[in-house]
Amino acid sequence: MKTVKIYDTTLRDGCQAEQVAFSVEDKLRVARRLDDLGVAYIEGGWPNASNPRDQEFFQRVRDIDWTQAKIAAFGSTRRGGIKAEDDSNLQYLIASEAPVVTIFGKSWDLHVTEVLRVSRAENLVMIEDSVALVKSEGREVVFDAEHFFDGYKAAPEYALQTLSAAARGGADWLVPCDTNGGTLPDDLRDIMEAVASEFDLPLGIHAHDDNGMAVANSIIAVQCGVEQVQGTINGYGERVGNANLGTVIPNLELKLGRQCLPKGNLNKLTAVSHYVSEIANLPHNDRQPYVGASAFAHKGGMHVDAVLKTPESFEHVPPDAVGNERRILVSDYAGRSTVLSKLQKLWPQLQRDDPVVAKLLSEVKQREYDGYAYEAAEASLELLAQRLQQTMPELFKLHGFRVIVEKREEDAEPCAEATIQLEVNGATLHTAAEGTGPVNALDLALRKALTEKYPALRQLHLTDYKVRVLDTTRGTATSVQVLIEATDGEEVWGTVGAHENIIEASWQALVDSIIYGLQRQMNKSRSGGNAEPGNDYIA
Amino acid sequence: MKTVKIYDTTLRDGCQAEQVAFSVEDKLRVARRLDDLGVAYIEGGWPNASNPRDQEFFQRVRDIDWTQAKIAAFGSTRRGGIKAEDDSNLQYLIASEAPVVTIFGKSWDLHVTEVLRVSRAENLVMIEDSVALVKSEGREVVFDAEHFFDGYKAAPEYALQTLSAAARGGADWLVPCDTNGGTLPDDLRDIMEAVASEFDLPLGIHAHDDNGMAVANSIIAVQCGVEQVQGTINGYGERVGNANLGTVIPNLELKLGRQCLPKGNLNKLTAVSHYVSEIANLPHNDRQPYVGASAFAHKGGMHVDAVLKTPESFEHVPPDAVGNERRILVSDYAGRSTVLSKLQKLWPQLQRDDPVVAKLLSEVKQREYDGYAYEAAEASLELLAQRLQQTMPELFKLHGFRVIVEKREEDAEPCAEATIQLEVNGATLHTAAEGTGPVNALDLALRKALTEKYPALRQLHLTDYKVRVLDTTRGTATSVQVLIEATDGEEVWGTVGAHENIIEASWQALVDSIIYGLQRQMNKSRSGGNAEPGNDYIA
Repeated sequence: MKTVKIYDTTLRDGCQAEQVAFSVEDKLRVARRLDDLGVAYIEGGWPNASNPRDQEFFQRVRDIDWTQAKIAAFGSTRRGGIKAEDDSNLQYLIASEAPVVTIFGKSWDLHVTEVLRVSRAENLVMIEDSVALVKSEGREVVFDAEHFFDGYKAAPEYALQTLSAAARGGADWLVPCDTNGGTLPDDLRDIMEAVASEFDLPLGIHAHDDNGMAVANSIIAVQCGVEQVQGTINGYGERVGNANLGTVIPNLELKLGRQCLPKGNLNKLTAVSHYVSEIANLPHNDRQPYVGASAFAHKGGMHVDAVLKTPESFEHVPPDAVGNERRILVSDYAGRSTVLSKLQKLWPQLQRDDPVVAKLLSEVKQREYDGYAYEAAEASLELLAQRLQQTMPELFKLHGFRVIVEKREEDAEPCAEATIQLEVNGATLHTAAEGTGPVNALDLALRKALTEKYPALRQLHLTDYKVRVLDTTRGTATSVQVLIEATDGEEVWGTVGAHENIIEASWQALVDSIIYGLQRQMNKSRSGGNAEPGNDYIA
Repeated sequence: MKTVKIYDTTLRDGCQAEQVAFSVEDKLRVARRLDDLGVAYIEGGWPNASNPRDQEFFQRVRDIDWTQAKIAAFGSTRRGGIKAEDDSNLQYLIASEAPVVTIFGKSWDLHVTEVLRVSRAENLVMIEDSVALVKSEGREVVFDAEHFFDGYKAAPEYALQTLSAAARGGADWLVPCDTNGGTLPDDLRDIMEAVASEFDLPLGIHAHDDNGMAVANSIIAVQCGVEQVQGTINGYGERVGNANLGTVIPNLELKLGRQCLPKGNLNKLTAVSHYVSEIANLPHNDRQPYVGASAFAHKGGMHVDAVLKTPESFEHVPPDAVGNERRILVSDYAGRSTVLSKLQKLWPQLQRDDPVVAKLLSEVKQREYDGYAYEAAEASLELLAQRLQQTMPELFKLHGFRVIVEKREEDAEPCAEATIQLEVNGATLHTAAEGTGPVNALDLALRKALTEKYPALRQLHLTDYKVRVLDTTRGTATSVQVLIEATDGEEVWGTVGAHENIIEASWQALVDSIIYGLQRQMNKSRSGGNAEPGNDYIA
């Protein structure tokens, strides 16, 4: 099988993205994970005087044993008018001790004369010199030909001369870059074919996504004979971003039969994608091809029916090939198959014609009409099934709550207070709490009442709270939908509430969230043999 | 210039996306905006017995004068073994009175035998029959050939026969669909060329993005001669989504020289993209090509330098071509030019160096950091400017409010009550009201207090109320953003509030909404010569 080397630049070009910033520790963690995934190159940054963070990174990576990846340092050709040996940026690259050095140079004459402001001839010497110097230090040298495609369109001969200069300097790789991300596939193919016919050196591709073509252009370049693809996890990068490796890699492996990662590693891809977005502290894009949470999520009733009969009918690849999973979304488009597949997770022995399926289906449809949504609230769906089956344990009984928000003058800060009265195991508890807002106060008062009896509650945290107002322009009563996400540090679960009163909608989602979490804790301790008092309540 | 017809399916396929759900009012608003943008077709939904929402949509669109777009209804071919006239789904399509009907049929033999479970021959008759029936009602018929590309790979002759059946039935358009979104550009080109050589009817393309190729495939199809592109705003759609029209349209217009929208309309694209995500209540994807906030955002120091010297050095197209703008990321989220352009909309004579600009810019920046957003809240921006300029009339002075939500037992309905104390023209008023929820109660109590003095208030109605929770994963205090839309029957205006307490955030947006509306009423009656008491207050 032909191989393609994956060159990851998440830690360099990825950091050019708006909102992406990694500390040195972050970079090391991401690099370890990329090595475990099995990329061939990890570009760690641009070590130079104004970038001490990247200098430190290259110092620290020396002590790590990398199993798959080679570490690459990135930097520009020397400045005009000086010797390569006297260029401090090149000295930083050498001092980084990175086994691979990627040097970028200008391939578009506009940039040479307007941005660098050197002569076209001097630019060629700068490229050759700089590559030769680093090569003389025994490094593997990748030449990134910046703006190559725009340059080729403007002055094809000159663009090719810049590659020749790098080749003369001893470069190991020539990598035409679509730096502005504006090249269409047909043009890219023509130009890559022209390059491939001129050079015997191995070629790479570096594509940006400004016209939405970075992945397509990378794939087409491989079809033109390119052996290295540069890109980033989640497509992070300057402006719109770089070629998304989470899409490039499975396309190459599953559709073109090229090996990019060590055999058996492709199914690590979804987890790596999530990991990098967590380190970047950015929400994971659900709608990413292959690795997004929605990539194999089926909503339409007819689709669901078909995908359960014949998976390939609506899935272009099996989700587990990339470590993702099929999700059947419960919505008002849902049919019986959708509900059945959810229920079978809870009760694997359940048959399609069991009356509980029809009962739950009609209940879910009614509730979705009323404003509930179970797509992101599987915990509430599970509890709804328990309630319908009357297998729901009663952890507490509410006697009432009151929430007060008060503002005492025009510019005063408002205050929020909640009181709650409930019964646990026959004992009546009455608590009060202040919060930043009414829902926060209610949450705190509820926890105050329950924590003594259910200390496991301390491990539960709300991680997200979303509000949506439905059918607001209908003139009929407005319904407010609240989605809460919570975690105990191991699992994350979603719950939903809906009501025309936002406090009541929040209360429903809050209570479901806490009950689901407590059931989980109790089941866990029961299966671990450490029965706790609450266990009696679990069906 | 060659034209390409844009067929928007945001309101149908877009609603198959996880988290996307539109009310009938939402659909109508989006449709009006798409018509203003100038797409050729708006697919509104699938009217049938289990979808009363879409039935209502098609009823209501009949009374609207569409300037550019034709409205299309979507549905499947008849079921097997019955006459087309007896198929209730086809009857719903006809009853919708939509001038365009899009019928989808199966082009992959696997689906025919495994999912539909009819014979290959019967499927062909189903297609022909169904198209012919709708055609006999005088409608324009688009045939969506579901799974065409997978079908062609499995059984090319049969796939082509399904198109022939639609052509025999009288279809006006044949649209091969890459329903699973797994087709690579090279395969797509080969297959589209085969189709184009067989049929004289106009062709379309419907691509899904599961392998990240929906846009590339759409562009390549146009290069093969296709005259209609189906897609959605923001790429919303089943699983990963559909071809993103925000990327397809500028690629076709700016790079391939095809006309898709009426001349001069391309620069409406960014605003439409934002509008649709607002209606869907989903965050706008900053990293969308062309229309995302990051699409022309420059972060790297060298890039910024170059882009200021020579814009085309790092911008593949001028940002204003699509109604977007260049952003130089000096600090974290500097949206300075956005704010300036907003201000100039309100006060066209305003000079860039007027001190009020700097003052308002820094205030807006601080407030956007705190959670306010003025994109959809220009009324609040105008009032903020008045407050800073101290030209804001005092319509009333708040002494305080209290909101109570109470629930008296587990299954009881909660009740919401608000009391409010305020001063109007020296008189203190103290009112109370019950509402469906806390914000409704507050609104009613406020109106009770103000209506006697400001009877114009009776003409103001809140039409939308949206809540968004910001920075939920940051660990710092969560901020709640409330957007309110109101109308007096002539103009619609938006206001914003933000606070960690949702009641306070709602209060801010509510007060702005009422003040803005009253100012409007008073200005109107003043300019009409009918001075009212309140006029003294208007600056």
